[in-house]
Amino acid sequence: MAAEPRNPLIARRLGIDTHNEAVLFLREDSHIVRAEGFAAHARVRVTNGRNSIIATLFHVNSAILHRNEAGLSEAAWKLLKLDGGGNVRVSHPVPLESLSMLRGKVYGRRLDAASLASIVGDVTAGRYSAIHLSSFITACAARPLDRGETIGLTRAMVDVGERLTWQAHPVVDKHCVGGLPGNRTTPIVVPIVTACGLTMPKTSSRAITSPAGTADTMEVLAPVDLDLATMRRVVEQEGGCIAWGGAVRLSPADDILISVERALDLDSEGQLIASVLSKKIAAGSSHVVLDVPVGPTAKVRNLDDARSVAQGLIEVAQAFGLEAKPVFTDGTQPVGRRIGPALEARDVLAVLDNAADAPHDLRERAVLLAGTLLELAGKAPEDAGRGMAEKVLASGQAAAKFRRICEAQGGLRTPPVSSHRHEITAHGAGRVVAVDNRRLARVAKLAGAPEAKAAGVELHVALGDEIERGHPLYTIHAETPGELEYALEYAAANPDIYIVTPS
Amino acid sequence: MAAEPRNPLIARRLGIDTHNEAVLFLREDSHIVRAEGFAAHARVRVTNGRNSIIATLFHVNSAILHRNEAGLSEAAWKLLKLDGGGNVRVSHPVPLESLSMLRGKVYGRRLDAASLASIVGDVTAGRYSAIHLSSFITACAARPLDRGETIGLTRAMVDVGERLTWQAHPVVDKHCVGGLPGNRTTPIVVPIVTACGLTMPKTSSRAITSPAGTADTMEVLAPVDLDLATMRRVVEQEGGCIAWGGAVRLSPADDILISVERALDLDSEGQLIASVLSKKIAAGSSHVVLDVPVGPTAKVRNLDDARSVAQGLIEVAQAFGLEAKPVFTDGTQPVGRRIGPALEARDVLAVLDNAADAPHDLRERAVLLAGTLLELAGKAPEDAGRGMAEKVLASGQAAAKFRRICEAQGGLRTPPVSSHRHEITAHGAGRVVAVDNRRLARVAKLAGAPEAKAAGVELHVALGDEIERGHPLYTIHAETPGELEYALEYAAANPDIYIVTPS
Repeated sequence: MAAEPRNPLIARRLGIDTHNEAVLFLREDSHIVRAEGFAAHARVRVTNGRNSIIATLFHVNSAILHRNEAGLSEAAWKLLKLDGGGNVRVSHPVPLESLSMLRGKVYGRRLDAASLASIVGDVTAGRYSAIHLSSFITACAARPLDRGETIGLTRAMVDVGERLTWQAHPVVDKHCVGGLPGNRTTPIVVPIVTACGLTMPKTSSRAITSPAGTADTMEVLAPVDLDLATMRRVVEQEGGCIAWGGAVRLSPADDILISVERALDLDSEGQLIASVLSKKIAAGSSHVVLDVPVGPTAKVRNLDDARSVAQGLIEVAQAFGLEAKPVFTDGTQPVGRRIGPALEARDVLAVLDNAADAPHDLRERAVLLAGTLLELAGKAPEDAGRGMAEKVLASGQAAAKFRRICEAQGGLRTPPVSSHRHEITAHGAGRVVAVDNRRLARVAKLAGAPEAKAAGVELHVALGDEIERGHPLYTIHAETPGELEYALEYAAANPDIYIVTPS
Repeated sequence: MAAEPRNPLIARRLGIDTHNEAVLFLREDSHIVRAEGFAAHARVRVTNGRNSIIATLFHVNSAILHRNEAGLSEAAWKLLKLDGGGNVRVSHPVPLESLSMLRGKVYGRRLDAASLASIVGDVTAGRYSAIHLSSFITACAARPLDRGETIGLTRAMVDVGERLTWQAHPVVDKHCVGGLPGNRTTPIVVPIVTACGLTMPKTSSRAITSPAGTADTMEVLAPVDLDLATMRRVVEQEGGCIAWGGAVRLSPADDILISVERALDLDSEGQLIASVLSKKIAAGSSHVVLDVPVGPTAKVRNLDDARSVAQGLIEVAQAFGLEAKPVFTDGTQPVGRRIGPALEARDVLAVLDNAADAPHDLRERAVLLAGTLLELAGKAPEDAGRGMAEKVLASGQAAAKFRRICEAQGGLRTPPVSSHRHEITAHGAGRVVAVDNRRLARVAKLAGAPEAKAAGVELHVALGDEIERGHPLYTIHAETPGELEYALEYAAANPDIYIVTPS
């Protein structure tokens, strides 16, 4: 009996989405597993001749996989570019050189630029397991990166991704450090500053765990899924755009590292700075305003931390010829009055159209950020930016510009309106003293947001309001009765989302 | 249309072995995923009413799972005790309190006993993902545990597992810190010291990534899968046993932490001490000898590190009323002359039976460790332990005792002999200057070890030997022609496993 050819194996797309993690599934009783002694959760090399990856191995002992098949997670399938299928070979991986640099950092050695490039290269290629990624994030928090290391990390993150270049100068950008529910200033800031003649090719993200991301909100008003050529045409024509960033691969390492940071809830200043700036540098910006919400539940907890982060952002940005200006803003409560893609879009339009009921806090933030950007990029003298932004907004020029940008991106859309609503009212009279933003977001998601564009929550009270018993607290919006009922069940089981105390 | 009951879901055992990781598979287009906004790789709570776990969520977008099913990995299935099936509910998990203690450690705060108990409790219950485990291991390496923290960690690890108690006193034990291929001293030490009247209820492990663990080797000579009652009976009757530790849940946290340490290749002194001592304390030992191999590729690299670890082991052991004695041994090369369960068993029998060809190094190590144990437990005066052990071994008393222990464990077995062999010979004459132990182990595993008991590798040369061209280097043993050929292919592709240079 001769040894049969048991490797290569037939690649099989199992349709299992593990987020970024490349996972290989092999039958426990397959020859390859037995012969190579591949234990469950081992790291293995998978290659189809053209591409190679390192994946985490899970054993299968059921009929969902055949013995001559190699099951692959979606991430592994994409990294190997296996569309059309084919065969793969599985082997023991060569130990990653960058892991010994990571171990050095754990034990207190400094990471030089070459080491950081090596680590970030392996991270981006998917060669780090969740265990390795977590060790890197933890090491950078336990042994904080110094300024030189932070610059090295930022450069490494820029170098592994795509990098945009623009004819225009200056190219401005804005970014919110750490996010805040409802903080949809982007679709207001872009038309204000581009109406004043600045160039602002803005890319935004979709929701990951929230009821809406800026790209989701913008999408109910215009197409956002622009390829690079379309983005360039829109920017050349209108001076700016508001596109989904997913189509352009800026700082791909950041997308991987951030998901681990989120799982650990570990923020290290160095990682934060590299994460923010690598995307701005890769996007080809020359001037960037950074909205830094400060508050006990925000990413930056107090003013001391805010000043330290701000100083770091400015210095690291300088190393790349980028002018950065941090702006500290109120991070204690959400911005605007609506949650969910179409509902937030209505807040945005209300501000642009100077509607009487436009949320004041959203308008003020947008004007502040736009004004700072105008000063930073030299369009307005110091202390005159805010006034210029206010004028452009009040005159309707910003609204007109916004509609032209929407047309250029593929056509202005009318936000959908929910077909099913229910108002939640106060059980008692008194003062609104607290609101649980996390659970409000849950209600919006249960109602269908962000997939159901019209779904979400509309708020009728703010902190400090004096209300009567029966006063409306919030309205749930849904597109189907089933989703409405699902959200209502949760709302009924959580009567303390708003806390009203007798005054 | 009313909201349908979409949660609970039908629990489905997918037959996917992820090692320790609890994984939940849900259809991406299921109502629960959409409504709750469960992202891929999110941590979710799964409960069947009686038991609850936290699992990592993977999305499925293929027919391997139905929309009303919750697929579970083997680890998740077992933690939920789902045998017989049933329904499960999936929800957002309550944030783990111990994670904020872990974050504190990352930022430099000391871990008190309560925090360590909380962390180890969550680890053991499977509430930590690989990301959290890795962060804990990394934090303990980057911010080394002080003595008090090490004691706290050890206590926490003992408290979450089972703990054995024995009538006899002293109860002795031995442990090899960091392992070394072929280091099968246990089946020799146990009969020597029990023949001298000591009590030694020894538990050993099976191979994880090596061609044989002590339990695998012992199993070819006698049953090792003893339940606690049998173990007690054997120990009462013969003074000792050599059982597989898997049947008794001593320090279950260690099994989880160790796999992450291995993946990161991070050794911190505190973790090492807690790992070693928690199992010995839980096993009810009063006196333990610790074999600490020192060498550049061993776990402990040099004598300075060895002294530091030794001091820590002694002090932490004292805190639990356990007398520990570290013994530094040569960690530069494997021990004995055979690799694989039955082959190593032959080395063991050769030593016990005082055979002329018994491996000298294995014999010397066993006598050294047994002698140290006899002195430590007060059976022999200082400096007389080695002599006593030597005498008991040379007289055949140890061999007779070993056979009685085997009988008590269920009957002495004759090790199987391989049916297919092939000798690998030297390509040139000269001196043997190097051997790659890792690749030799690969050959043994490809030949079928440890599942195929008779499979493995027999070594014919040692470092420093002067040999002629054509001199046998090693013999591959296999149970089938297919496995032999598979190992031969690898051996042929790796002619440099032994390096022979002209002298």
